[in-house]
Order: sequence, then C-alpha cells, then structure tokens
Amino acid sequence: MGTIIQRDFTGEAMGLLVFIGLGLHDEDDITVKGLEQARECDILFTEFYTSHMREGVKEELEKKIGKEIIVLSREDVEAGDIILLEAKERTVGFLVPGDAMSATTHVDLRIRAEKDGIRTRIIHGVSIVTVATGLLGLQSYKFGRTTTLPFRQKGYFPTSPYDVIKRNKDIGLHTLVLLDLKESGETMSVREAIDYLMRLETTKKEGVVTKESVVCALGDVGSDNPEVVCDRMEKLAAKKFESQIFCLVLPAELHFMEKEALQVLAGAPEDM
Amino acid sequence: MGTIIQRDFTGEAMGLLVFIGLGLHDEDDITVKGLEQARECDILFTEFYTSHMREGVKEELEKKIGKEIIVLSREDVEAGDIILLEAKERTVGFLVPGDAMSATTHVDLRIRAEKDGIRTRIIHGVSIVTVATGLLGLQSYKFGRTTTLPFRQKGYFPTSPYDVIKRNKDIGLHTLVLLDLKESGETMSVREAIDYLMRLETTKKEGVVTKESVVCALGDVGSDNPEVVCDRMEKLAAKKFESQIFCLVLPAELHFMEKEALQVLAGAPEDM
Repeated sequence: MGTIIQRDFTGEAMGLLVFIGLGLHDEDDITVKGLEQARECDILFTEFYTSHMREGVKEELEKKIGKEIIVLSREDVEAGDIILLEAKERTVGFLVPGDAMSATTHVDLRIRAEKDGIRTRIIHGVSIVTVATGLLGLQSYKFGRTTTLPFRQKGYFPTSPYDVIKRNKDIGLHTLVLLDLKESGETMSVREAIDYLMRLETTKKEGVVTKESVVCALGDVGSDNPEVVCDRMEKLAAKKFESQIFCLVLPAELHFMEKEALQVLAGAPEDM
Repeated sequence: MGTIIQRDFTGEAMGLLVFIGLGLHDEDDITVKGLEQARECDILFTEFYTSHMREGVKEELEKKIGKEIIVLSREDVEAGDIILLEAKERTVGFLVPGDAMSATTHVDLRIRAEKDGIRTRIIHGVSIVTVATGLLGLQSYKFGRTTTLPFRQKGYFPTSPYDVIKRNKDIGLHTLVLLDLKESGETMSVREAIDYLMRLETTKKEGVVTKESVVCALGDVGSDNPEVVCDRMEKLAAKKFESQIFCLVLPAELHFMEKEALQVLAGAPEDM
C-alpha cells in the first residue's frame, strides 16, 4: 500500500477519514488490509459502546498496530467533532466493532466528513448479520429488520421489538434480535429476553411468539468455539448457557434445507 | 492459536473442515484469523466460479499462506466428495470468496460434513451485501432477497429477477442485483443489465422500473478506489464506467438520510 497522505494542488494537506471494521470477537477479526491501513494512520479512534468484543481487545490491537488507540464515548461519536477536526488535515482511522458502517451514526459521520471536504474510505469488517446467518445455515436474504431488546426500566417497556418481529414474520423474514448491553459489559440474559417477549405477547396477543416457538441463541460468535443453540422458547428460557449470549434469531417459516441446517448445526428439535 | 488436529477417545484423528471467507477484492481482504488458520491447514481448496476477485489473488494468497491452493470447479464443489474425503482425517481449509457461507452449496457441504462426523468451523469474511449497503450509506435491514441477472441466451430469458425486485419494492426493501459472470471473467455490462430489466418491464408491465428509476452501480468494491454511482436508469445505461461493475442496487422507498447518503456518496440526482 502506498502512502495515503495526499495534497491538493495548492500544496495543502488533504484529510482522510478511514472507517475500519474490527469484526466481532477479538483482535484477529480485522482484515489484513484493515490492520495495514491502521498502521498508516496518524491517529486512531475507536468506540466499544455497541460491542461485545473480547475484553482486552483494545490493548491487543494497540500491540499489533503499534499505535495508541483513543476510545470515544457514544456522545463523542454522535457529536463527531473530535474525529472531524483531526481528519481535516491528517489521516484518521476510526476502528469500529463489527462492520464499519452498520450504525446510522457512522453513516452520518461519513456524510458530514465528505460535505466538509474530507475524503473517506471504508475497510469493511464482518457483520453480525452475516455471522448469525452463517452459523445457523440460514439464508441472509431471508432476514428482515434487526431489533434490540432493551433492559426494562421503570416506566420503560417498548413494544417495538414485538412489532418488528411480527412485520418480518408476516412476510416470511427471520428476525435477528440483539440483546441489550450495559456499559458495565453486562448483557441481558436469555431468560430475561424471553420473559420480555412473552410479556409483550400477553399484552398484544397477536400470536407472534408462544412457549412452543422455536428460537436460536448465539454466544461467543467469531470465536473458535461459538455457542449455537436452537430450541423451543420454554426450554431455552430454562437452559444454562456456557457463554454470554449476544443475540437471538426468531425464524419465520423455514425452507426445508434451513430446517435441516438448524437441526444439524444448532440441535433444533426433530419434530419442529 | 493452538493446534487444531484433535483425536477422539479411541486415538483416531478427527477431521476438521474450515470454511474461510476471503472478502471481495484481493488477498488482503481475508481476516488475520483466516490467514493464520489457513497456514495451519493440511490442505487448501478454493473456488472462484462465483467471484470477482482481482486476478492473481490465488497466487498472492499462496505466497502469503506459504501453501499450494487447489482450485475446484463448480461441479467439484457441488459434488463435494473431494473436500469431504480429505476432511475425514485431516484439517481442510476451504477458501471462499466473500463471506464463507452465503452460497447454499456451501451450507449443504457443511451439513454433510457434520452428518459424516467431520467437525466444521467458519472464519467469516466480508459479504457483498455488507459492502454494497455500506458504500451507499443504506441500511442493511432494508435489503430484501438478492437476485442475479443472467446472460441472455437463445430461449433463456428468466423473468424471476423482475419478480424479486417487485416483491422487495412492494414491502419497502432495496434489491441487490448481481451481474452474471462468465467463466472467462467477463461480466454483463450495465447497459446490458438495464436493457434486460427494461425488456422485462415491457413484457410484464408492472411498473417496477422506468427510464427515470434511480439505480446504483458498484465496481471495484473492496479496493482502495471503488466506483460508486447513482443515477437515473437512462443515464446510467449511457455512462462509461472506469471499472468493471459487479452489481446494481435498485432502491425501494428511501429514508431521508438514505437519500442524502446517495447524493453525497454516490452522486445521485438532486431532484430525486
């Protein structure tokens, strides 16, 4: 790869903002290209507020890249100024867990940079959608909109996840359901998630989920040993998992090959 | 990474089949983990029949990995025996362009391996769906089923791509349209693709595409300098592209932020 600092015809340095996807689990889930590009950046930022990456991944990346990485808060990323100001004249790398561009905030940041005359580049990473579909043997085009189950707080009990699952299911699409993450790193448990969904069913009564519904749970995705389980909701709620579960998949109607995949790859019930 | 040859309790060697995604453009689009895993495999296979990767990528990968890579034909992969036989007792790496598991054939191969008692592992790669959405600033959950436009041959003029685009559009989903690839590496041109779609419209008359429809074209994705263009169909058909275009995106109804993204990132018309 050549040098990436460019100058315009007046001799002024032109800024560059590179979004680099980190993939899902550890410091080795970045692409070779992403790693090389990170080494060429003048300054590196990252955010981990949406991430389930392994603990210590920042320190390991700093060792591999040979540069310090500055962790930004959600507020910093949403405001964007810290990144955009640096990218005016220098080459800034923004290391993003998962794929580089799946969050609306990041797309917005890229649009603002381009409007400011800052060149942008994307070095893509592996996305949770790709990984969840791949591990379960489902087809990616059969996934609808993704939703997140938030922690329940006093007076905060959104019903939108239920509506998303219903709309997807009505048109034959599976739903990837991300489980909320606290800043402490604590994730919602599968039991809590299923309680949440069943409570929504009790309220809305639209027949989206029952105790008998088949659900998939995924943990440690991207690691050498991901946990991939598919069972009826009632059984899954009672199960003890070996890893921290990141997401559920609620399948819509299954193609026969998808059914076989869930049985062979995720231990789905034979009689489903 | 530890050694990956395992033995069961009888002391017999257990086979392992690792699907390793290569990403989209060149030898550096593999993840660091994928590269390390490939180095540990006893034998490496690949297929390039669905791929637009840069020429010479196999040779560059062989240099990086330090091992020979055997290229399989579509028939070999579909039959699967060559891979499964080797994976009975050895560690086999199957290098797959793009993500590792997006083709049904590959999911099928994995299911057969597991049923045969061969352990499988996936090291995911970047998928075209992630990249196309990311480059255009669109939301991945707003993509419906992907379709491919095949080369027209005497008596072969499938209308299914039109039906897929219509079904997606009806429910507000964008369509990724892959352009067919000959074994010689030749891709269908954008003009041919648009002619194909307009001809289907003339036949079916369901108002899915018009000369005024906004379409995106993507070339050299995954490279340092991807070509990303969005314009009305008529204009796009007349355009001279700098690179080989791999795919089109036919957007459904756009969120205002998606509209701005297409204007800033892909030069979409201001009045769309």
